[in-house]
Amino acid sequence: MHDDPVSAAEADAADPLAAFRDRFALPDGVVYLDGNSLGPLPHGVAERVADVVTRQWGESLIRGWNDHGWVDLPGRVGDRIARLIGAPAGSVVCTDSTSVNVAKALSAALALRPDRRIVVSDRGNFPTDLYVAQGLIAALGGRHELRVVDPTDVADVLTGPDAGDVAALLLTHVDYRTGRVHDMAGLTAAAHQAGALAVWDLAHSAGAVELDLDGCDVDLAVGCSYKYLNGGPGAPAFIHVHARHADVAEPLLAGWFGHAAPFDFDLAYRPTSGVGRFRVGTPPVLAMSALDAALAVWDDVDAVGGMAAVRAKSVALTERFIAGVEARCAGHDLRLVSPRDPAARGSQVSLAHPEGYAVVQALIADGVIGDFRAPDVMRFGFAPLYLRHADVDAAVEALGTVLDERRWDTPAFRRRAAVT
Amino acid sequence: MHDDPVSAAEADAADPLAAFRDRFALPDGVVYLDGNSLGPLPHGVAERVADVVTRQWGESLIRGWNDHGWVDLPGRVGDRIARLIGAPAGSVVCTDSTSVNVAKALSAALALRPDRRIVVSDRGNFPTDLYVAQGLIAALGGRHELRVVDPTDVADVLTGPDAGDVAALLLTHVDYRTGRVHDMAGLTAAAHQAGALAVWDLAHSAGAVELDLDGCDVDLAVGCSYKYLNGGPGAPAFIHVHARHADVAEPLLAGWFGHAAPFDFDLAYRPTSGVGRFRVGTPPVLAMSALDAALAVWDDVDAVGGMAAVRAKSVALTERFIAGVEARCAGHDLRLVSPRDPAARGSQVSLAHPEGYAVVQALIADGVIGDFRAPDVMRFGFAPLYLRHADVDAAVEALGTVLDERRWDTPAFRRRAAVT
Repeated sequence: MHDDPVSAAEADAADPLAAFRDRFALPDGVVYLDGNSLGPLPHGVAERVADVVTRQWGESLIRGWNDHGWVDLPGRVGDRIARLIGAPAGSVVCTDSTSVNVAKALSAALALRPDRRIVVSDRGNFPTDLYVAQGLIAALGGRHELRVVDPTDVADVLTGPDAGDVAALLLTHVDYRTGRVHDMAGLTAAAHQAGALAVWDLAHSAGAVELDLDGCDVDLAVGCSYKYLNGGPGAPAFIHVHARHADVAEPLLAGWFGHAAPFDFDLAYRPTSGVGRFRVGTPPVLAMSALDAALAVWDDVDAVGGMAAVRAKSVALTERFIAGVEARCAGHDLRLVSPRDPAARGSQVSLAHPEGYAVVQALIADGVIGDFRAPDVMRFGFAPLYLRHADVDAAVEALGTVLDERRWDTPAFRRRAAVT
Repeated sequence: MHDDPVSAAEADAADPLAAFRDRFALPDGVVYLDGNSLGPLPHGVAERVADVVTRQWGESLIRGWNDHGWVDLPGRVGDRIARLIGAPAGSVVCTDSTSVNVAKALSAALALRPDRRIVVSDRGNFPTDLYVAQGLIAALGGRHELRVVDPTDVADVLTGPDAGDVAALLLTHVDYRTGRVHDMAGLTAAAHQAGALAVWDLAHSAGAVELDLDGCDVDLAVGCSYKYLNGGPGAPAFIHVHARHADVAEPLLAGWFGHAAPFDFDLAYRPTSGVGRFRVGTPPVLAMSALDAALAVWDDVDAVGGMAAVRAKSVALTERFIAGVEARCAGHDLRLVSPRDPAARGSQVSLAHPEGYAVVQALIADGVIGDFRAPDVMRFGFAPLYLRHADVDAAVEALGTVLDERRWDTPAFRRRAAVT
């Protein structure tokens, strides 16, 4: 395929997901390759939010909790997400932020392995997951150890001399910086073999790669809904717990919405059965309604092949981008940071360049939006629902032009913004 | 005043806050006495949310973080709240839910008093605060004790034989069920005298009563923004930390947005200085923008007397309601649950009735919206920004009619809904 590529027009004409592009409000003249950071606005979200604000809140007021089902929203949205990650209905709840959910999941895992001491993670984990683990371990008195190793060394720790002391494996499935994919099935099995629990962060996986949490026998998982799930900036996150733990896991954050009878106002906490015990406070109705509307797009993906079709297109797009960059941008100081093997890669392609920050700014000025991660990584996310093969070719051409013409080499593009 | 009441029309004509009613979208024919549970929709919120969704998110996409100041929203909103609670700018951040913030505040307090064992709270505290304390104490290994006493006995514990072992006082300032107000200054001083920290939950205080967190020397505080602050269902909560703790408090929930340099993606957590370290995950931009717009209403309160005027009107409304009920509903089986002394009462009036649930449903059917708390308490909240003295009189008359005519005595009104 790399030697004799199919034209973008042919590939787009044959794309079973092509029609989904029209479900999104994409600005004219933009090739959006940052859906791995913040997904674009799906059509229907603005209308849903306006209805929730003006009619549900504005007119129903407090009655909205019953009349519009606000109280069940975390479970309903959780079930929509469960279908996308290979988890059973009733095993996922939408709540809080990913970071807060990491704290809940890790704390629950440690409580289920009270005699063990070690949390295993890797240097490719998203930093907030490591921060949460550090904060939790400090709060618990310091008797635990967070052991952070290279991604390739994780399996060795689970079979090494300290394996019997490992309480939990805490990994992000797809590396936020490189796009490298961990072997969820193999590492979860290895964790179980060692007697440990496996906690997976699906931030860069949900909505982008095929997941089978149930088949992999994952203990706990968390994830983000504002990336490939397009829930909007800071959209509420989710948490999954396996049925074997759901009625015994003890929440670190025990709040009234996780209580078996929140409106009885008992003085003693009594967690509800199931994943609902990982709910804490009052659900964010406006934000969760936006996410619910965004997830409606996915209801129609099953009819055209489901997550397998999404993944197949993702691989086609990232392969096309890599091949295109190799052909068009040869001779420039680019290095592929992502795995070359698509089976080992999520839905993003990361390229290193010494002036990566400025190159990304120059691309953005040309309408090709990717992002940058220190020290030198340019990230390009390929969300299969709204990107075309033609967009890939346009991005390749824009990158080639920026590099050929050194358009990045201006003070304006080299000046870092607050959020990069 | 009770013997010779001013007419509602006269009182409303003399009300310095009268004009604020027009800042809210109140449905026709409704007297809304549940702003202590969910505040109504302020004008401007729907427009702001629509703009954030359609223009900021939809058009700016990932660039919104810089272009629209999303990253600073928690601090900006926190500063708006700080002014309403007597806290210095920079001491409040908007983040997470109240329950999650209780966990952070209590955990930080316990870490600041590592040699002490007891958390003092009271039976009038909102249950989620007690649940959070129970969950945290269990997670910390059970070496702490949550001592829950009657509200009137709190001071005694702080001067009793175990005072030297008290790590933290954890109280909700205004009792959610009765409206009883704790003496924040006195109890905080007593806690400090005992060597403990004072953690206050302002859920039923912020926007309703005058607060002087700084003058009371409060250590940590949390609060809710969807009640008297009208931020919308499940709006993000806030947390305050005193300057003397802000750079030493160790967050239980250590997330990337509390890091000193979140976009450096260091592997080691290094909390930022100040209250910002109590941020955890990505801020909920849609919901927090709604709250920000709702808080804009308060900007204009200063010109007409500020929180002192709000409190004065609150007292006038609750006094008028109690006097009206005493006069109009005499002979029915009503009991005043709230303190009769307005100085000891927040902005709500609670009345017990054996059929309280059904009475509230009958009132709602008549357009007077209050709520119910088990076992028999009817709550009526009097938010000074949008309620008129005439509304109080209408509510009294409606209650009298419901009771006189036993309108509550139908199966439809006695059937409990999911959320009461």
